[in-house]
Order: sequence, then C-alpha cells, then structure tokens
Amino acid sequence: MKLTADWIVGFVDGEGCFFIGINQHKEMTTNYQVLPEFTVVQHKRDIQVLYALKKFFGCGVVRKNHADRYAYRVRNLSCIENIISFFEKHKLKTKKRIDFLKFRRVCLMMKEGRHLEKEGLLEIIDIALKMNTSDKPRLLEIKEKITRG
Amino acid sequence: MKLTADWIVGFVDGEGCFFIGINQHKEMTTNYQVLPEFTVVQHKRDIQVLYALKKFFGCGVVRKNHADRYAYRVRNLSCIENIISFFEKHKLKTKKRIDFLKFRRVCLMMKEGRHLEKEGLLEIIDIALKMNTSDKPRLLEIKEKITRG
Repeated sequence: MKLTADWIVGFVDGEGCFFIGINQHKEMTTNYQVLPEFTVVQHKRDIQVLYALKKFFGCGVVRKNHADRYAYRVRNLSCIENIISFFEKHKLKTKKRIDFLKFRRVCLMMKEGRHLEKEGLLEIIDIALKMNTSDKPRLLEIKEKITRG
Repeated sequence: MKLTADWIVGFVDGEGCFFIGINQHKEMTTNYQVLPEFTVVQHKRDIQVLYALKKFFGCGVVRKNHADRYAYRVRNLSCIENIISFFEKHKLKTKKRIDFLKFRRVCLMMKEGRHLEKEGLLEIIDIALKMNTSDKPRLLEIKEKITRG
C-alpha cells in the first residue's frame, strides 16, 4: 500500500495522537522522565495501514494496543524528529495542529536538555496540561509533587 | 480552508461513515424507507473542516450531532451520487472501502427502485447487516417483521 503525504495528513487529522507522557523514573534527577509519543491506533482489520505508515516514515513500531486494536507508535527521538519535519512541511488542517505545535515545542526543549532540570520539567508539564490528549488530574498531581520537591 | 482529494480520502478513512438507515414509514408499500447517509463527525472546535467538506462536495449540510459534536451529513440522493463518484475515483485505503462498496451497491439498487419492493428491501437489509456501521439487532428485527409481513 502506497501512501501520499496528503492522505497521511488527512488520516492523522482524524486518527493521530501527539502525546507527552510524564512517568516516574528513579534514575532521573527530577524523578520523572518525559516521553513524547506519536501514535495512530486502528482496529486490527486495518493493521496494513499501520505498517504502511511505518514504511512511509521509515521508523516506529506496530504493536498491539487494547483489545483488538493495534497502534503505529513512535517514541524514538530521532524518528520523532522525522515525524515533526513531515508535519511542519505538510500542515494538519484540524485543531490537532495546535497539539502538534505543543508537542514540537516539548521535543525542542528536550533537545536542549530542559526536561532534565526541575524548571524545564515544570514548563513541559504546563504545556502538556494544555494539550487535548493530557491526563490533567495526573499531571497536576505530578506538578504538585515536583513543586513541593 | 482548501482541501485536496488525498487529504479527504485520508480523513474519511479515519472519520467518515457510510450508513444505510432503515426506518419505518407508513407511506411506503413495504412500510419501510431506506436512507443512505454519509457523515463525518467532529468536535465543534473543528467545525470549519466540516464546512470545507461541504464546500468541496458542493452539497450536504453541517448540523449539530450529540453534545459538542457536529456532523457533515449527506442524505440527498444526487449529492450521494457525487460522493460515490468521488470515492470511486479516489479509493479509500482502509477497510472502510468495503463498507463504501456495500453503500454504493444499495444506492444503485435504490436507483433501480429495488428498495420499493419486499424482495429488494430484504436484499438491502442483508447488505446493511454486513456493514460495520449497522445496528444488527434492530435490522434483524425489521427483517423478521418484513418476512412475516
């Protein structure tokens, strides 16, 4: 299956997800790691579309998600840069673009190592809180814990 | 907002719905009317995408759906023909294409007036039963009523 850039933009406008995960991690000075993730989830009947996305971007993995759903998932930072370049060139048309821009901002901050210190991490959490995909109560709890120190 | 054909195919692969409604209607000899419907539903924040689809296809309506969601909806048969021509030319890449082909078959049967007689209507219900979007228990109940009829 051959995908075009415009088809991918349309499909991701519908089904894509730009997500900033914040997880506890003892090896980090801040106690938390930042995990940007781009995913597209589909019912298993359309797993071939997920593999076509993987082929198109030349990276990422296809993994089982919940129940009979599968996800094309990108966590690797150099692959995420690849995804970001694509959506900079080929603009999303829905408000998902706003989430994408926040996602990109966090990834740029990570490139500068900002996520490794408390202040930068708090800034990242504030950006993530404004994203459509965020788990707000959980992020607010983490933010409080970090602030309390 | 200007949409390209490929973007629309990708977006509809994600968010579009081809649906065959079967509703009770006293004026019909069979007591039922067949209502093919193409819809794309979005959160109200993306209502401008629905209006862009309406503009692209030159027909259909944008209406409130449930809660804070809106739908671009096509029920008018000549507009549905327009939609069908588009997706014949620009093929869907997901399994939604199978639903589209069933939807098209029902619309062609309607053009021949097959939905107006019992046998054709039962055939249409059998097609609709195999669609991903069908309310199977309800359709089976209608089928039984017509068969007993």
